[in-house]
Amino acid sequence: MNPDVRMRGFPSRAAVAVALNMLEQRISPLPLETIALQQAPARILGTDITAEVAIPPFARAAMDGYALRASDTFAASAQQASELDVIGEVLPGRPFSGEVGTNQAVRIMTGAPLPRGADAIVPVEAAEEVAPPHVPTRRVRLFEAVPPGRHVGQIGEDIALGAVVLRAGRHLRPQDLGVLASLGVGRIPVVRQPRVAILISGDELLPCGSRPEGYRIVDSNSIMLQALLQRDHAPVQSVVMVRDQPEAVSEALKTALRNSVDAILLSGGSSVGQEDHAPRVVAQLGELALHGVAVRPAAPFGIGFIHDRPIFLIPGNPVACLCAYDLFVGPAVRRLGGRCSAIALPSGARDEPYRSILLPLRHQINSVVGRLDYVRVNVTASDVNPLAPSGGSILSSTTRADGFVLVPAESAGHGPGETVRVFLYD
Amino acid sequence: MNPDVRMRGFPSRAAVAVALNMLEQRISPLPLETIALQQAPARILGTDITAEVAIPPFARAAMDGYALRASDTFAASAQQASELDVIGEVLPGRPFSGEVGTNQAVRIMTGAPLPRGADAIVPVEAAEEVAPPHVPTRRVRLFEAVPPGRHVGQIGEDIALGAVVLRAGRHLRPQDLGVLASLGVGRIPVVRQPRVAILISGDELLPCGSRPEGYRIVDSNSIMLQALLQRDHAPVQSVVMVRDQPEAVSEALKTALRNSVDAILLSGGSSVGQEDHAPRVVAQLGELALHGVAVRPAAPFGIGFIHDRPIFLIPGNPVACLCAYDLFVGPAVRRLGGRCSAIALPSGARDEPYRSILLPLRHQINSVVGRLDYVRVNVTASDVNPLAPSGGSILSSTTRADGFVLVPAESAGHGPGETVRVFLYD
Repeated sequence: MNPDVRMRGFPSRAAVAVALNMLEQRISPLPLETIALQQAPARILGTDITAEVAIPPFARAAMDGYALRASDTFAASAQQASELDVIGEVLPGRPFSGEVGTNQAVRIMTGAPLPRGADAIVPVEAAEEVAPPHVPTRRVRLFEAVPPGRHVGQIGEDIALGAVVLRAGRHLRPQDLGVLASLGVGRIPVVRQPRVAILISGDELLPCGSRPEGYRIVDSNSIMLQALLQRDHAPVQSVVMVRDQPEAVSEALKTALRNSVDAILLSGGSSVGQEDHAPRVVAQLGELALHGVAVRPAAPFGIGFIHDRPIFLIPGNPVACLCAYDLFVGPAVRRLGGRCSAIALPSGARDEPYRSILLPLRHQINSVVGRLDYVRVNVTASDVNPLAPSGGSILSSTTRADGFVLVPAESAGHGPGETVRVFLYD
Repeated sequence: MNPDVRMRGFPSRAAVAVALNMLEQRISPLPLETIALQQAPARILGTDITAEVAIPPFARAAMDGYALRASDTFAASAQQASELDVIGEVLPGRPFSGEVGTNQAVRIMTGAPLPRGADAIVPVEAAEEVAPPHVPTRRVRLFEAVPPGRHVGQIGEDIALGAVVLRAGRHLRPQDLGVLASLGVGRIPVVRQPRVAILISGDELLPCGSRPEGYRIVDSNSIMLQALLQRDHAPVQSVVMVRDQPEAVSEALKTALRNSVDAILLSGGSSVGQEDHAPRVVAQLGELALHGVAVRPAAPFGIGFIHDRPIFLIPGNPVACLCAYDLFVGPAVRRLGGRCSAIALPSGARDEPYRSILLPLRHQINSVVGRLDYVRVNVTASDVNPLAPSGGSILSSTTRADGFVLVPAESAGHGPGETVRVFLYD
């Protein structure tokens, strides 16, 4: 190999928009799978759900009180009570087997089925039960006239039979699962979560949990990527350290693909140096669709496809790794999982993992036209402050930072006082 | 029992602030436990972490280029190259064993240790390697003068030895775990997650996954509470359906406590009716600290303590259950897990589970002074719209809603056009 070429950097770098557009075109949500409601929190619903029963399935009391015929209360008022016989009581678990006749009432609890014959409820606050000694039948005095239907929850009042209760694509909330349970739904179709393999390349790296030793440093990308993927509901199937040799990288990719992963994150060896085997190996096994992006600090990022499955070539540099995940890998993984309708730069939209706020800049941010910059910043109550320029290798800058600002490719930077959108890490 | 009393409702209701203050006083974060980094995503760090190694632990290249003595470049310029012997190369995984002398350079890759003798790097972009045929030693032409230290990442530049890198109480980000891994930390102390038992009372209820049948409806609270607790990082240890009998409720509470749960959520039977055994049973086994809160729709909420462990009496009504969770149980559970510095109403602070936005109201919201209202709302791009008043039993209102507005106890409501804070469910 010509030593000039192997150290010269990328001949050209794709615009961020080109990379995002490629992911948008080539990545689709995974097929559906059917799971129990207990497994469904925060999953993405795969189909519309239609109510096969009405909720409530029977007329029920909306308040504690007395179930009766409304017509028996028409003469009642605060000054002049109507008095009825109390012939029983009904609880949610214990229906009333008889029928309510004229001048009769049944004590009823919220949620209990309305007894036959009754058509309204007088709430307990407008009633006074009288139980004279030695009289077998209790009586109730009512101080309010009620129309038929008052305080009765009618059949289908909450959910009508046949109604579409939830739409496909819904990010399932806790209360959605409650509604589904009410409807008698026990299992639902959801978008399958992407299974991801993480490959870590770099002979200088010791596995997470080791102590740095001599010139060997500890891999920090795999644990960071695992946590990011966990946040994005993409179970990590395997984490493998790979030797810096083309055969080793090739074998690791093939093994991951045999294990039916939906995406592979290959960290390290993604650039154009002589130890950067990943791009060539991906090109041999499938397609190296894009290599090198006009973004700082994640320029040596690449996208490949093998058997239609995306392979992300992620810079080994830890800040670049985070940047590449935030801009490209995260949206792609969320798209696979049905969580992201469009693959685009964070814009403050609701489907992003980071909350965002608008704040004025305290200091200048310099950038270059044609390159997108991912700038770590601190946030105060009144402004935002770029961290002193630090290399992509300074991972601690991302723990000191409160979030990041994106300087778009069209911009040469932002001046003091200019309002920018900050994406908050927390 | 006097039938008047048993249906009369609460003699008085505690202000929401009183309930929150009680939880604030009596609930503290759980003790620490030590776990592997792989288990630590999104956990709460238990102690400050100090760097026991410097990062980087050795001087390293910040760019691809040539390691050399800066003094050998002082005469170089774009017009007039300095030419040095290339005596070897150094990669991150493969240190250079020799020493760089005068007029010598070593090819170096980003991240590789700076060879002995070298004190600066000329980047590859300012160099041109020449390899004349039949000459054993390659040479490099340099077009840039660099001062000592240029493009060298010094020892401790990222993290100094002894520096506090993360503080106790930190909600661990993906990149924090990367930093910890870099430092050789494999296990960390974190706040233990609360283990929670869910007890569901109500003879009319069928277990989640059943189809509603006759007058029996399906329990929707347990699955909703499970999902809420999962979101709040509180593993659910057990979900048990309990008969509407005092002995059954008592036995279920004792069993849960024997299994070392940190909190119990008891749904149903929390009010003052004859089937509402929970308050009396809790009072018998421990302390019923508060029963009845001035909030709509979760008035029949209560807080008890048995052996210092909180028991939450949650209304069976599903919307009231959600409201009680959002206002009281969630903050308490997050506090147990070290996730919440103060137990207070959602206020838009960053530690809340719901994002919030400010928007003007389209329609009036009516409330009552002395009572806090939890109002489900829809949100448009320009305003917020309260859902048509619906009973606490209408769980589908919480799936149709985009979020909720809290009308404080001091207020009788909000008028059209008034700006309110909306807490978004998604």
